[in-house]
Amino acid sequence: MNFVVDSMGGDNAPEVIVEGAIQAIKKLEKDDIITLVGDSERVGSILKEYGYRDHRIMIVHASDVITNDEAPVKAVRRKKDSSIVKGLNLVKDGKGDVFMSAGSTGAVLAGGLLILGRIKGVDRPTLASLYPVIGHEPSLIADAGANAECKPRNLLEFAKMGSIYMEKVLGRENPTVGLINNGTEEGKGTSLTKEAYELLEKSELNFVGNIETRELQNAVADVIITDGFTGNAVIKLTEGLGLMVLREIKKMYLDSPRTKVGALFVQDKLRNLKHQFDYKEYGGAPILGVKGAVLKMHGSSDAVAVRQTILKSRKYVEEDVVGIITEAIR
Amino acid sequence: MNFVVDSMGGDNAPEVIVEGAIQAIKKLEKDDIITLVGDSERVGSILKEYGYRDHRIMIVHASDVITNDEAPVKAVRRKKDSSIVKGLNLVKDGKGDVFMSAGSTGAVLAGGLLILGRIKGVDRPTLASLYPVIGHEPSLIADAGANAECKPRNLLEFAKMGSIYMEKVLGRENPTVGLINNGTEEGKGTSLTKEAYELLEKSELNFVGNIETRELQNAVADVIITDGFTGNAVIKLTEGLGLMVLREIKKMYLDSPRTKVGALFVQDKLRNLKHQFDYKEYGGAPILGVKGAVLKMHGSSDAVAVRQTILKSRKYVEEDVVGIITEAIR
Repeated sequence: MNFVVDSMGGDNAPEVIVEGAIQAIKKLEKDDIITLVGDSERVGSILKEYGYRDHRIMIVHASDVITNDEAPVKAVRRKKDSSIVKGLNLVKDGKGDVFMSAGSTGAVLAGGLLILGRIKGVDRPTLASLYPVIGHEPSLIADAGANAECKPRNLLEFAKMGSIYMEKVLGRENPTVGLINNGTEEGKGTSLTKEAYELLEKSELNFVGNIETRELQNAVADVIITDGFTGNAVIKLTEGLGLMVLREIKKMYLDSPRTKVGALFVQDKLRNLKHQFDYKEYGGAPILGVKGAVLKMHGSSDAVAVRQTILKSRKYVEEDVVGIITEAIR
Repeated sequence: MNFVVDSMGGDNAPEVIVEGAIQAIKKLEKDDIITLVGDSERVGSILKEYGYRDHRIMIVHASDVITNDEAPVKAVRRKKDSSIVKGLNLVKDGKGDVFMSAGSTGAVLAGGLLILGRIKGVDRPTLASLYPVIGHEPSLIADAGANAECKPRNLLEFAKMGSIYMEKVLGRENPTVGLINNGTEEGKGTSLTKEAYELLEKSELNFVGNIETRELQNAVADVIITDGFTGNAVIKLTEGLGLMVLREIKKMYLDSPRTKVGALFVQDKLRNLKHQFDYKEYGGAPILGVKGAVLKMHGSSDAVAVRQTILKSRKYVEEDVVGIITEAIR
């Protein structure tokens, strides 16, 4: 397999991207390769720094970078030599198997649509994000922010594509699907959620009904369906609250010699809690509904996150998620 | 002042409601009274149990109760002798100054609309909820769930009414107003948030722009504006995550004799963190935009929550929030 990685995207690029690739290649199979797309001089010098000289990490030069501040569609159309456009073209041309980037979410989405194209019958591709559930396996939230405004049929599509991803990539058999709503009873919600409920109810999916966000930490469904505005709010709020809790716990323990002693008794457990909250472990967020395997990594990804995304993307390709979605949506 | 309290609403009614009233009356002024609306026999027997015999807690008998399962508007129309309908009528007739209930949110909202009526010029009254910000004073979220679908002008109204409440009741001078959106830059969002942004920008309010939910714990704005679907999702997710964190920390400490010892070093601080997360301390959520002071208490309120809501409702009345909103919206 050829894992194509945007080496210029994210807060800590290209350093952590290259470092993550070096970590990943050691765990990949003998005939796997990683293609780093980006400024070949900078990427090359980092590889050199790490003393890496194997041929299994290749560089494809891209002279341009799309930043977070640029209008995505315009940037993808104009910056033909950007790492995102070049990386996606490698997948489109069959030279790469999966593309991943920690760069501009908008640009990765726009690139997926414009370069790879939508799968036939899919109205709106979705960004699906793994969501930490403490003490359980993660859920998958779709849409996680790609489509702020949705129609009911979009939510049904997200549910179909998300279920396939959960089953094939995360091995969740016959995954349950829940719809975020402002009450659990049928008939609750906005016109969007009411109509989506009916579509999901009639579908062949394992639909378990409405769920309130209060229940998200109780592992109520494998696949959590919502519009991208709400999905974005849920994911970012979870991140913000997670950071706040960790900050408060740290503050609590650093308060005095006495509390510092207290910390020693539970530090392993605290580390474990932090670990579970950490998006980095889960690998990137797939963009489902485009004609190719694409993953968006968190902008603040470190080398471990990059490594995990590369390693966990194997099943996305090997299980032919894109092909199965194509069949299912037809 | 006469504080009118629905003694039949909430998970633990009427016991905790009566208990909360007894706690509150001790801290109120000499000429204040509390009117408990509900089953006079049950309420009377609880008062007796507590040995309460002062005349400053009065009972107004209501033979009926509106439950959470009933269709709110229909229930308010039909159950003339319910505690919610009777309590609101006391305020409408000028016999009570403020009404509060831990019962059905929908019924309190519908009752506010049907019995007290909308303030002239207000399109949609809003349920505004105080939102815990750890280490800071709380923010106010409007709408907290009364209006799942909103027009841009509704969000502007919520902002105006919420700002007045924050200034008059919580003493927050020239309160800042933020709009929940899926990005901080102007021009981000759905058609609703884009148009609401423009209205807020042009208003005389202290508008600080878009805010992402990731920032809610950083005290970015005093008044947080959003549609009721998103507001509901944010508040319930915060509750769910708060409960999860407390559960995990408890589990962590109960794990072994060693960790139990660790807990002793920080238990005061943990209690303080829990306390800050606790909605109970903040008093109820005002329904702004109706012709009278109305507060919705959390369904799981205990006696402390009831007491706090009664005590904190004084300013809502004394500062004439309803009158000021009436002037401001005109």
